[in-house]
Amino acid sequence: MISGRCAACKNQRRKCPSDCIFSPYFPANDPQKFACVHKIYGGSNVGKMLQGIPTYLREQTANALYLEAKWRIHDPVYGSVGIISSLYEQIKNAEIELAKIQTQITFYKLQTQHVEAEPNSEVLQSQSSNMEQFEWDNPTIASWFN
Amino acid sequence: MISGRCAACKNQRRKCPSDCIFSPYFPANDPQKFACVHKIYGGSNVGKMLQGIPTYLREQTANALYLEAKWRIHDPVYGSVGIISSLYEQIKNAEIELAKIQTQITFYKLQTQHVEAEPNSEVLQSQSSNMEQFEWDNPTIASWFN
Repeated sequence: MISGRCAACKNQRRKCPSDCIFSPYFPANDPQKFACVHKIYGGSNVGKMLQGIPTYLREQTANALYLEAKWRIHDPVYGSVGIISSLYEQIKNAEIELAKIQTQITFYKLQTQHVEAEPNSEVLQSQSSNMEQFEWDNPTIASWFN
Repeated sequence: MISGRCAACKNQRRKCPSDCIFSPYFPANDPQKFACVHKIYGGSNVGKMLQGIPTYLREQTANALYLEAKWRIHDPVYGSVGIISSLYEQIKNAEIELAKIQTQITFYKLQTQHVEAEPNSEVLQSQSSNMEQFEWDNPTIASWFN
């Protein structure tokens, strides 16, 4: 921080103006953060994107751009799309597992219902509401890829 | 397709060379695809990224870049990070729901175990393996944000 320039202005070897768009989000002590977004989007594109965002949301924007850039550097083919596919896959597997459990609970309920009058109705209700949650969410996930 | 130029070369108003890096992945009949990546990364950055990828993986790369760009245009603050957070949240909620179900099944098992010798051990086993799956996966998800 000797020169007082932010990471972006240091990287671009220019003076850091007092109203620098990068300065609050790319401090000099974290040069890697700017280096990542610079490599993927180009510095001027990042500046343009930040300019288009209200000030109070710029920090979140800079951080999200940094994460996306880092993921793309880590996985130059799929980037964040790879992470989303993996999470989507995980949710699909959980759905299958939940459906299996639901079947097993139903089977068990049928097996034991002659013992008690109202066996396990609470468990079945909770399970069923959980399945509905997944059914609501998935069309949204699928639409992200269209 | 009258001019035979790809969407990128049309957009940049230049001749489309026979070895154009964009041509196979940005056809003229889908100008929106190039327009999106051009807006977010800049055309030359996209070209550079594709150049760094083996030919057989360039289509997946172009498609992933397009999806990321589309998500960022749709959500200029969070982009694909917003989608990942929402999926992560969904998995966390499913974990909580599964833990509740597990507790309910255990409770039910204890309530009914005086009726049968081996009540519902299969259900409990499946449930427990499912919970482990989530426990393994989550440190990975958390590390994506670091």
